[in-house]
Amino acid sequence: METRNLIGYQYSKGGKAFHAVNPATGAEIKTEFNAASTADADKAMQLAAEAFETYSLTDPKTKAAFLRSIAAEINNIGDALIEQAMAESGLPAARLLGERGRTTGQLNMYAGFIEEGSWVEAVIDTAIPDRQPLPRADIRKMMVPVGPAVVFGASNFPLAFSVAGGDTCSALAAGCPVIVKAHPAHPGTSALVAEAIKKAAEANGLPQGVFSILYDDGYTVGEALVKHPHTKIVTFTGSFKGGMALVKMAQERDEPIPVFAEMGSINPIVLLPKALDNRTQELANLAAAITNNAGQFCTQPGLLLAIRSAGLDKFKAALAAAITAIDSSTMLTPGICANFNKLSTGMLADKAVSVIAKSDKLDTSKENQGIPLVTAISAAAFLADDKFKEEVFGPYTMLVVADDEAQLEAVVNSLQGQLTASVMAEKEELAQYKNITNKLAKISGRVILNGPPTGVEVGNAIQHGGPYPSTSDSRFTSVGTGAIKRFVRPVCWQNWENDLLPDELKDGNPLNIWRLVNGEMAK
Amino acid sequence: METRNLIGYQYSKGGKAFHAVNPATGAEIKTEFNAASTADADKAMQLAAEAFETYSLTDPKTKAAFLRSIAAEINNIGDALIEQAMAESGLPAARLLGERGRTTGQLNMYAGFIEEGSWVEAVIDTAIPDRQPLPRADIRKMMVPVGPAVVFGASNFPLAFSVAGGDTCSALAAGCPVIVKAHPAHPGTSALVAEAIKKAAEANGLPQGVFSILYDDGYTVGEALVKHPHTKIVTFTGSFKGGMALVKMAQERDEPIPVFAEMGSINPIVLLPKALDNRTQELANLAAAITNNAGQFCTQPGLLLAIRSAGLDKFKAALAAAITAIDSSTMLTPGICANFNKLSTGMLADKAVSVIAKSDKLDTSKENQGIPLVTAISAAAFLADDKFKEEVFGPYTMLVVADDEAQLEAVVNSLQGQLTASVMAEKEELAQYKNITNKLAKISGRVILNGPPTGVEVGNAIQHGGPYPSTSDSRFTSVGTGAIKRFVRPVCWQNWENDLLPDELKDGNPLNIWRLVNGEMAK
Repeated sequence: METRNLIGYQYSKGGKAFHAVNPATGAEIKTEFNAASTADADKAMQLAAEAFETYSLTDPKTKAAFLRSIAAEINNIGDALIEQAMAESGLPAARLLGERGRTTGQLNMYAGFIEEGSWVEAVIDTAIPDRQPLPRADIRKMMVPVGPAVVFGASNFPLAFSVAGGDTCSALAAGCPVIVKAHPAHPGTSALVAEAIKKAAEANGLPQGVFSILYDDGYTVGEALVKHPHTKIVTFTGSFKGGMALVKMAQERDEPIPVFAEMGSINPIVLLPKALDNRTQELANLAAAITNNAGQFCTQPGLLLAIRSAGLDKFKAALAAAITAIDSSTMLTPGICANFNKLSTGMLADKAVSVIAKSDKLDTSKENQGIPLVTAISAAAFLADDKFKEEVFGPYTMLVVADDEAQLEAVVNSLQGQLTASVMAEKEELAQYKNITNKLAKISGRVILNGPPTGVEVGNAIQHGGPYPSTSDSRFTSVGTGAIKRFVRPVCWQNWENDLLPDELKDGNPLNIWRLVNGEMAK
Repeated sequence: METRNLIGYQYSKGGKAFHAVNPATGAEIKTEFNAASTADADKAMQLAAEAFETYSLTDPKTKAAFLRSIAAEINNIGDALIEQAMAESGLPAARLLGERGRTTGQLNMYAGFIEEGSWVEAVIDTAIPDRQPLPRADIRKMMVPVGPAVVFGASNFPLAFSVAGGDTCSALAAGCPVIVKAHPAHPGTSALVAEAIKKAAEANGLPQGVFSILYDDGYTVGEALVKHPHTKIVTFTGSFKGGMALVKMAQERDEPIPVFAEMGSINPIVLLPKALDNRTQELANLAAAITNNAGQFCTQPGLLLAIRSAGLDKFKAALAAAITAIDSSTMLTPGICANFNKLSTGMLADKAVSVIAKSDKLDTSKENQGIPLVTAISAAAFLADDKFKEEVFGPYTMLVVADDEAQLEAVVNSLQGQLTASVMAEKEELAQYKNITNKLAKISGRVILNGPPTGVEVGNAIQHGGPYPSTSDSRFTSVGTGAIKRFVRPVCWQNWENDLLPDELKDGNPLNIWRLVNGEMAK
């Protein structure tokens, strides 16, 4: 495995050594990685800025071929990639195989998406020379890439939100070079994928600097990248604290730049009375969404909201039975596991919180086990202290029990911005709770009826991004084809020569894309 | 005239008195205005948040009727509005009549735009229950309004970028209540337009709080509005210093919010050699764009770039003749005039800067006159000091003379982000200068061939917003139908009941809008 920092098509050994940890054993993994220097970061950014001059103008077919090559090269790594990711993340093989499929799937999806080409939002208003009182000039607008993007790998998706994940994929599709700051928990997985991207870039004749990857188990390299004048955009998935530190850093630059930070969410699920009465067992299946992969998903449901009733008591019993029977799971890192234990224990330290169920199936053969836990609290107590609204990243959820509909609504109104908000309901009771369902759309980016928020669809219609503090910018999504919009801005050409316009805007529509021409959609 | 602060449908007298100044006479205007209190600001924001609950869900037809009513009520004010704006801004009647037409024109344009309805970017991926390995859920996404918007009136467009200007119009169209902080230079103009909006809101049965206006000749009210927890978005057109102060304030909130600040631009025009040779007189007509309305436009061309040549000498002479013959004009405020004199004189204090022409037609019958001035500097001197790149707001431009093409390119590469960048060229010489024209699209939001940057078209294809520091966010426009995107974010509904979906997303497309359905545009 090539463990050196990759800067364009060159390697740099780096300095301070570090090792990943196998969370299932607690032992250091032998392979040594070396933190990049700030000079490495500067070199990577210089190459990215040079690459941007040509890559920003590269035709869609070439970019699509590049993305497909990355997907193919990732598959070419074979089992070694899955084994490496298992060792570094503690995630099971089935999950990682699925995640690899999602990663290559979105690379291939984006290839088709940019080949189709309508995503540039071409708008054309043709000239009206004899308009009164003033003539109208020919004006043509489309999206263009903004410049080099710094992508921070996420711990909880070592493939799909990491080196060749959604951020890298959508940035490269837009025409932005990418510099990845690898997550220190899975450097080996990162290195394997980085080699795949390098091969794909070389095979497609792209300029060096279109991709670089730098390692660091501290903050120096990330800070150097975010502060570098050539950096035009930053993406991050992780903690609120980490995300906001980057936002602040980016705002304090001479030229402030956007940071798209997806930071955390407790993803409330409202359980309405009739659904609780009629579908106890189905609702108890939420135990899977709460605990799968140790609950380490940004859309894991950390909050259940319901009105006190006999149906709720039945559900509590069924959920308790399900949770109790679920095995503990290895968490991503010792730090994440320690934090989970600290935060979940902290919740229990409050007298207002009671235990509904805790799994008794601890796997003692492995380290860093997350043990499923469900607690309960009264709505009154929940409303009285914001600490109950904080995310406990891991296999934990809290049931908030309201006395009546008004109190349930008060709880919903008290919530901060979320990635998702769900409601479990019988159809006939939805109208009664319209105030609540309307509110769910106001505080979140995705509203779900009768389903868990986990299992984010990667498509055109998905919105993965909600009001602050769940993300730093609710106007964008980090999943699906909409994610490309984070890396572009509109430019219009006025009275321009047809031959010199981008193909997307030329007369005759040579790329055959959808365009808004004089107010009418046309192809 | 009703001079009190308007908070929803109620009036509040306010405290500290202030008066506008007639810049043409230098005398205070008699009408007294009173600064709103921070309690007034809080009340306005509370009402706006309440109004948002219903106004965000108001149907497009009602919102369109509201916008058309505002336009009609503005016209109903008649000559009194033009006379008030003349007295407060020093702008001539013809310009203000045109600006009123632009203001009512964009209100009516937006009414049609939201009635048509496709702007919500509806995307629908229908369910695929039998997809392997996992079923696909039905997911439907569209843009929804973000919440109350605080709009700062601009000094240089007392109608079109002020109380009922582009920001207010696009925010109301999106479904966001608006709280205007009136510009202290034209409170009377603001008050007349505010009454028009109030009448339109009442006539259309809209909740109070959908619009408020507050006065202040200091910073207290603006700060209270930007910092208020109910504020979700801020728009501003003005100086770099003012814009960035608001951006910083908004970033330091508990919940950071976006500020769309359009801050300044010197709008370079590259004059290519053949055009200089062949079209001397046409290019000298740039004198109008440089000096119209005392050059007080965000797109005023403050920088001309050319290579030394005999053609350039001819152009300089023609431009000098044109500038010399142009009358001085009253500037918007004594402060703006003093700043213009200070900055333009400051430029002349540098030995590297020479005068090409200064108008000798000072109107001594009026105060606060901006006197047209064009200077020249060598490219070498220009490149050596960033101070020459600063905007001189007023009837001023600087010609930068390069020795050769390489030096011209170096000058272009040295420029910061701009709203616009233009090139004057014969068609046959454009290919030779492709590096430069490509660069113009990288540093600006609008690239113009053979035309002045002033006279911004209000339409679908316009982009009025460029890279930092010309605006705080180059991904959005403040002019044209695209301006509505500043006030919205996407929300998706997953597996939702058809009857409870917004009409834009319902089966059967009841609003008959363009939607992306399973990857295909359809209506």
